[in-house]
Amino acid sequence: MLLIKVGGGKQINWDGVCQDIRQLSQEEKIIVVHGASVQRDEIAARLSIPVKTVVSPSGISSVYTDEEALDVFLMAYPGLVNKQIVARMHQHGINAVGLCGVDGKLWQAKAKKDLLVKEGNKVKLLKDNRTGRVEKINTELINLLLEHDYIPVICPPSLSFESEIVNTDNDWAVAVMAEALHIRKVVFLFEAPGLLRDHLNKDSVISHIEKEKLDEFLEFAHKRMKKKILGAKRAVEGGVEAIYWGDGRRETPVKDALNGKGTVIS
Amino acid sequence: MLLIKVGGGKQINWDGVCQDIRQLSQEEKIIVVHGASVQRDEIAARLSIPVKTVVSPSGISSVYTDEEALDVFLMAYPGLVNKQIVARMHQHGINAVGLCGVDGKLWQAKAKKDLLVKEGNKVKLLKDNRTGRVEKINTELINLLLEHDYIPVICPPSLSFESEIVNTDNDWAVAVMAEALHIRKVVFLFEAPGLLRDHLNKDSVISHIEKEKLDEFLEFAHKRMKKKILGAKRAVEGGVEAIYWGDGRRETPVKDALNGKGTVIS
Repeated sequence: MLLIKVGGGKQINWDGVCQDIRQLSQEEKIIVVHGASVQRDEIAARLSIPVKTVVSPSGISSVYTDEEALDVFLMAYPGLVNKQIVARMHQHGINAVGLCGVDGKLWQAKAKKDLLVKEGNKVKLLKDNRTGRVEKINTELINLLLEHDYIPVICPPSLSFESEIVNTDNDWAVAVMAEALHIRKVVFLFEAPGLLRDHLNKDSVISHIEKEKLDEFLEFAHKRMKKKILGAKRAVEGGVEAIYWGDGRRETPVKDALNGKGTVIS
Repeated sequence: MLLIKVGGGKQINWDGVCQDIRQLSQEEKIIVVHGASVQRDEIAARLSIPVKTVVSPSGISSVYTDEEALDVFLMAYPGLVNKQIVARMHQHGINAVGLCGVDGKLWQAKAKKDLLVKEGNKVKLLKDNRTGRVEKINTELINLLLEHDYIPVICPPSLSFESEIVNTDNDWAVAVMAEALHIRKVVFLFEAPGLLRDHLNKDSVISHIEKEKLDEFLEFAHKRMKKKILGAKRAVEGGVEAIYWGDGRRETPVKDALNGKGTVIS
């Protein structure tokens, strides 16, 4: 079983991704997870809702989700983007079904209502935070679809244990899902050639990382790549044997990633 | 099996609907279809995208869907509204899974790219119309979910036979779905007590309509109720034995409709 996470950038070559999935799905079951951050930001801007970013006390930045931001999130992720991807897949002959973590409690998360954030040198408490961390997967629903030859196309948000909608980190959810479904190979596609030793030099791709040594590479991780490394660590802890970070803008993005054209963690 | 279509108004008592569904689902399988027209219009207004209405040569008005309008539709229907309904159902202990017609080709539609519309006394041809009419249902996917005790919560848009996303009339889709699944009872909830003999007098509810005589009631149908009558006719032709039009604002909206508190077509 292959889990493919595709980032939310606008330059992702979705036709290429679909062609690869169509081919690879002849040989193994495939699950797709996707982002939609760029469209989320665009809709927020058009609605004049600022996207608020916060920094955790340990220095990791993320988007702050209040109720208004969650509405925009729902418009972009399971609405506009998920359904456009699903339709595109059907155009390529892929029998896709789009779901978000809320559906059938696909992704259940521990809500984190109070959030500690760093503002300059101070640490502040934010209330009414609508995020959480995925802890439980409805594997029965995913397997049901896979057994009947559907390809699940999944995105956040998730459902909290109190049945409220919460935004959750996608890479973390992918790691938890990989563990729950005993998946050994995970592909992550984004708009970069892989993990770069120098984020300004696209020729500095780190082609291989020993999976036990992920921590050592945190220093090379620029901005949101830090989260990717934490997600990868979690995936390795959950039993994933190989993680392929690849460039979603290439002609055959999934195959190239699997062929080691990006960064392989194994 | 009971099919419940809930309109897209903001005054629908969703907690009441959920409580009824929770109870009724102990005895029979339930499928929910919903609208989201009010939220669609709100998002369109906030994005400064005017909702364009057109009138067919036979005098039936409907929303004109171009590509921009379809994007808004996706934000509202399978995005914001579907997921909020699904989460609400989980809060009431209902194991809901939200899908739109695009997912797994759930609702396949014949696209209608060219549209004849009446403007004053003239008939004009509009191109690039993104609507269609539902003709084919993926009953396998719906039955798969029902057999595993999920309640499907379905909304438009649909997938055309060319795998493009198209807006489709909800009441018509409900009728085609009822036929494909051999459903005998369909409940329609909206923000009115039923079909009114005089649309300005809420005490003029027509409590019963013989299903063979639906045509005679077209004259009482105000605005969008015309489409409901055409949808009901299609449902009756497809084998539906009883249609219950009821007020979604009541305390127990589904049960009241089934108990004949609105308009019963049988």
